[in-house]
Amino acid sequence: MTTELDLGSSDGPPRNWKGIGIAMVVIVAVMSLVILSVILLTPDESHLLLRSHLTMEDLESDEFKVHDPCVAWLNDNEVALRTREGHVLSFSLNTNLTTTLLDNSSLDLTATKFQVSADKRFVLVAYNIRPVFTQSFTASYAIYNVANGDLLELNPLEREKATLQYASWGPQGNQLAYVSDGDIYYKPSVTSNPLRLTTTDEEQNVVNGLSDWTYEEEVLLTYVAHWWSMDGARLAYLTINNSATPVMEIPHFLGGIYPSNVLFPYPKAGSSIPSVSLFVVNLYGPAHTLEMMPPDSLRARDSYISMVTWISSTRLAVRWLNRAQNQSVLCVCEATTGACSEKHKMTMDIMQNQRQDVPLFSADGSMFYTILPAKQGARGEFHHIAGLSAQPAIPSVPPRFLTSGSWDVTLLCALDEKAGKIYFLSTEESRQSRHLYSVDLDGVFQRRCLSCSLIDGCGFFKAEFSPNQTHFTLYCLGPGIPKVTVHSTKDPARYVVLEDNSPLCRALVDKRLPETLFRTLPADNHDLHLKLSLPQGYEANLHPLLIIVDGVPGSQSVTEEFALDWPQVLSGTHNVALAWVDGRSGVGRGQKTTAVDPRKLGSLRVKDYLGVVELLMQLPYIDDRRMVLYGKAFGGYLTLKMLAATDKLFQCTAAAAPITDFRLYSAAFSERYLGLPCKGGARLLDCLFAGRG
Amino acid sequence: MTTELDLGSSDGPPRNWKGIGIAMVVIVAVMSLVILSVILLTPDESHLLLRSHLTMEDLESDEFKVHDPCVAWLNDNEVALRTREGHVLSFSLNTNLTTTLLDNSSLDLTATKFQVSADKRFVLVAYNIRPVFTQSFTASYAIYNVANGDLLELNPLEREKATLQYASWGPQGNQLAYVSDGDIYYKPSVTSNPLRLTTTDEEQNVVNGLSDWTYEEEVLLTYVAHWWSMDGARLAYLTINNSATPVMEIPHFLGGIYPSNVLFPYPKAGSSIPSVSLFVVNLYGPAHTLEMMPPDSLRARDSYISMVTWISSTRLAVRWLNRAQNQSVLCVCEATTGACSEKHKMTMDIMQNQRQDVPLFSADGSMFYTILPAKQGARGEFHHIAGLSAQPAIPSVPPRFLTSGSWDVTLLCALDEKAGKIYFLSTEESRQSRHLYSVDLDGVFQRRCLSCSLIDGCGFFKAEFSPNQTHFTLYCLGPGIPKVTVHSTKDPARYVVLEDNSPLCRALVDKRLPETLFRTLPADNHDLHLKLSLPQGYEANLHPLLIIVDGVPGSQSVTEEFALDWPQVLSGTHNVALAWVDGRSGVGRGQKTTAVDPRKLGSLRVKDYLGVVELLMQLPYIDDRRMVLYGKAFGGYLTLKMLAATDKLFQCTAAAAPITDFRLYSAAFSERYLGLPCKGGARLLDCLFAGRG
Repeated sequence: MTTELDLGSSDGPPRNWKGIGIAMVVIVAVMSLVILSVILLTPDESHLLLRSHLTMEDLESDEFKVHDPCVAWLNDNEVALRTREGHVLSFSLNTNLTTTLLDNSSLDLTATKFQVSADKRFVLVAYNIRPVFTQSFTASYAIYNVANGDLLELNPLEREKATLQYASWGPQGNQLAYVSDGDIYYKPSVTSNPLRLTTTDEEQNVVNGLSDWTYEEEVLLTYVAHWWSMDGARLAYLTINNSATPVMEIPHFLGGIYPSNVLFPYPKAGSSIPSVSLFVVNLYGPAHTLEMMPPDSLRARDSYISMVTWISSTRLAVRWLNRAQNQSVLCVCEATTGACSEKHKMTMDIMQNQRQDVPLFSADGSMFYTILPAKQGARGEFHHIAGLSAQPAIPSVPPRFLTSGSWDVTLLCALDEKAGKIYFLSTEESRQSRHLYSVDLDGVFQRRCLSCSLIDGCGFFKAEFSPNQTHFTLYCLGPGIPKVTVHSTKDPARYVVLEDNSPLCRALVDKRLPETLFRTLPADNHDLHLKLSLPQGYEANLHPLLIIVDGVPGSQSVTEEFALDWPQVLSGTHNVALAWVDGRSGVGRGQKTTAVDPRKLGSLRVKDYLGVVELLMQLPYIDDRRMVLYGKAFGGYLTLKMLAATDKLFQCTAAAAPITDFRLYSAAFSERYLGLPCKGGARLLDCLFAGRG
Repeated sequence: MTTELDLGSSDGPPRNWKGIGIAMVVIVAVMSLVILSVILLTPDESHLLLRSHLTMEDLESDEFKVHDPCVAWLNDNEVALRTREGHVLSFSLNTNLTTTLLDNSSLDLTATKFQVSADKRFVLVAYNIRPVFTQSFTASYAIYNVANGDLLELNPLEREKATLQYASWGPQGNQLAYVSDGDIYYKPSVTSNPLRLTTTDEEQNVVNGLSDWTYEEEVLLTYVAHWWSMDGARLAYLTINNSATPVMEIPHFLGGIYPSNVLFPYPKAGSSIPSVSLFVVNLYGPAHTLEMMPPDSLRARDSYISMVTWISSTRLAVRWLNRAQNQSVLCVCEATTGACSEKHKMTMDIMQNQRQDVPLFSADGSMFYTILPAKQGARGEFHHIAGLSAQPAIPSVPPRFLTSGSWDVTLLCALDEKAGKIYFLSTEESRQSRHLYSVDLDGVFQRRCLSCSLIDGCGFFKAEFSPNQTHFTLYCLGPGIPKVTVHSTKDPARYVVLEDNSPLCRALVDKRLPETLFRTLPADNHDLHLKLSLPQGYEANLHPLLIIVDGVPGSQSVTEEFALDWPQVLSGTHNVALAWVDGRSGVGRGQKTTAVDPRKLGSLRVKDYLGVVELLMQLPYIDDRRMVLYGKAFGGYLTLKMLAATDKLFQCTAAAAPITDFRLYSAAFSERYLGLPCKGGARLLDCLFAGRG
């Protein structure tokens, strides 16, 4: 028997081919109907599917970067700026003409900073830039001559190819100042020899005209600590002396086989803080330096200077803070005599970041305007523009408020006495927005929004006015793609776009980005504010939740500012919902929070956050078994507190450089919120505020 | 209508009470049968349920600690030891009598170390002990007089309450040596004035008689680097000079507000290593110091001394290694002249840890015994005891092997020429065990196991012999609870228990501990060895797997040693299965591994480990979606390599202080396995071994 036998046995009853055919037709018809209905009933998400996720590699590439054109006012009708290609231009608002000052072909301008001199004849270029702290850097500097293309190295007298701590033009001609090894040098013009303005002992650990770590990160919040008078005749500068401050040593692994250490003065809670003095040097004629004398109440006590501004060619406004930073004194100093007179003394609100607020003074110095809390009926206190007399203080005269309402003035931009207006930013439109407004100094204090509905996709602005307030630069920071525009103050709708970040715009068209929602949640006697970024089509799925915790008093996380960073990448690649929360904060809070016991700061914040988390968990698209926290520094401290206060509520937390003990943290930060630590090793949090008041 | 009406309506047809009764009986009978069968068929795990998990808190408590009685031989019939209660005793083996030398009531002996002088008249107590590296410490020392209970501080001449680097008794009377600030001092007796034996320039970074970081952690592996001759007449010591060695700086957070830094010489691959010299000082009569001259082949070249031992009252055996640590030279040095003669030169096996092996010399110095690889037929090479002539080397005479078989001799313990025996540890019983054997020096090399089946629950031993080998201390290190016993060499079954850790034993009765299995898995041309610790009743569940990776060449992780640490806690609290793996290693490997290209060390190890993981994944009780790795230093390097070589195979890895670049790691370690780095910044792994050979 072979297998052939099996092959042959194909006989059997004849098949019903007709029946089979009909059955097949019916099956095909039914299946077609099923497929059709599936297609018709599925929501059209094909456009979503075509878009790709944002990746970390994207963030590294040029097209995904927001370009800062570094716009600077040269005069009322001209700005200097840098194009995306690297050209340095001046742009005339009257003629709409651009002039190339420095071509990207004449100099390799990648990784450089630039400044155009007041007379537009020179461009100062910083290169070999090495960052130090958040803003500070060292660099080599060269001066480019626009007329002949010559390039001149800027070196202190004795050395070649020097690294400077800072250099900048003055407001007149091509006068120039630079800081090297903690000392300030002045050049009346590019070609003249430098004049040494300060001489410090190297062992004294003193820096003139620039911030140290404490001033850069906690007090001034700028690297530059010198200020030119408008006429260029005088230079005010801080002298920061760290000879008594303990030094912190941080090991750095900078490519060598063995680590090297970086040392810098870093005062911790209770230790010596830098001593600070304000000097003014006369630049025209023989150099003559005078110290501005601090008010009597702070003389011989630890204090900070948190704001310096010229209000005329011979007078400065200066804000001194006591060490505990709960009292501020605003003074006007005569640069010609060094005498300072107190103009306004106030208790600092722990929840409000007012230390660097710049007041606006009238030209004759008789009046000034600043932001003060004002009770708005039952809605609590909000911050508004107050006009005060700068005459010898008559304490009984209450401040005259120019604005009111249940919203906050966040920044004073400019005072135009001729037009009788103050320009400012506020949250009147919404708590998460910042719009530019003007308000009349007199009459019914007529208010006008200059930026509202002006530029598509923009609700969060900052502004920079030209010297005589005829024009202003408007920086749109969000929620859409950032833009920089220049406007006429008289008719803000007449504007020129200096930068619209169109490459970023094009790059993002193909990317699936999260949708952002804002919510206000009522709590005990205050509101909690929430910003949620959700993956597109979020309602169809369960999403893990990442809560990004900041929570530093006075900070605001829930804003319309544009951001493109790792949280947005995470949202796309892992379908993560992102949440930012503002607890009891300084903006739009509608209550007096000076009553908050600073020692309860942490636990109140934790309570606020956990309250919001409870509400977030109830959202139908949040997977409450996959909730994680991220926080840095103070935020890291809060995330760890939240983890400790809950039982497996959060899957994990990433606490970057968390504050684990306030005694080990910066004096300026710890003491501001918790007071001076008691002597004898008592716990900072447990001890009463011996140093406050 | 009230509810009373309802209460009254209890009429109806009469119930069939008989039927109901029968039904109930049947139901009860069936249920009883079901319950009975469930009870009978369920394995009895009630004893398991009563036991609790081991916790991290348990590990901290005293009862869970293994007590080390610090047994030391005073002479052939007496040991000194410390009881669990803190008493220091001497115990006579002849009379079975204990004598209290130091009562725990006379001195607070917690956190101290002790040593009894050779004449038993004094006890040296170290207190205020501060650890430095793995073994090293600084301490204050006091001498307790047993006769009168007096306590005398041990201070260098000029200072009070000094902290010493080390102090110890000599082998005769109450002679004493100590090290302070890198110099050795000698006291002929407790009451005599100290003699300063060395004088070094403080700026030279020299230490005499003790190890520096390199010698402690990588070369000698002991803190002490001085050796008394048996008669106490001479002291040999190393002088380690780190003046050319680069210094490493490690920030320490030691409770202060600001971190302080610890600096120590730490040579990295390719940098200057410490230079070492061996001196012998004559202690009887006027102090006279002689340097032992290294062999010609190593003179003027970088080298290490990895072993020093006295073989008679005037001669020492010394092992020198070249810098690449692939060649060793065993010399015998005449302490009276400083002349050293080469006795045995060998190529070091990268997979075998032979650097510290102590050879045994015959009393007349004509013969010595050491461990050498010996081919065992087709099974490959194993390590066995070789007898060699110490006469002027006749290179043609091959070593005479005293042992053979497919197992390894791991340590030579003692040579008893009178009895004609060598005592040693080997893996003859099993690769993961260590038993004490004797072998005859002549005849058929009769071998006898002294520790086999001797003590319940013990399979992994180390031994310490009395000066004339009449007795030995046996340290049972596992797999059961560690014990210390003293045995007569003639009749090992006659023994006294010095420490049985009964409190630990009682404490563990109530704890659910993992079960341990050993498995050997065949691979290409070698075996892989596996130790698995599984939660009790493991077969009923799926368990996550934690693989603990070590993998340093020459190390063995798969042993029967007792361990009670965080992995055992994890196993209990989270039902985790633990795995240790030995890849190609020095013990029980049965192959010549000098052929292994050291540059492939990492990748071979990774291959070995991943091979084992693949087999582990197939075990029915391992949850292959929850596998994690843990490794420290070299193990950390391997875990990261394994993570990189696989795709989401492991859930996570904990790499503690992983080696990320061998150029940044210790010279002695990196160069041993990978050779000297090439000049000019070539990658260590990529460059050929210019420094080897």
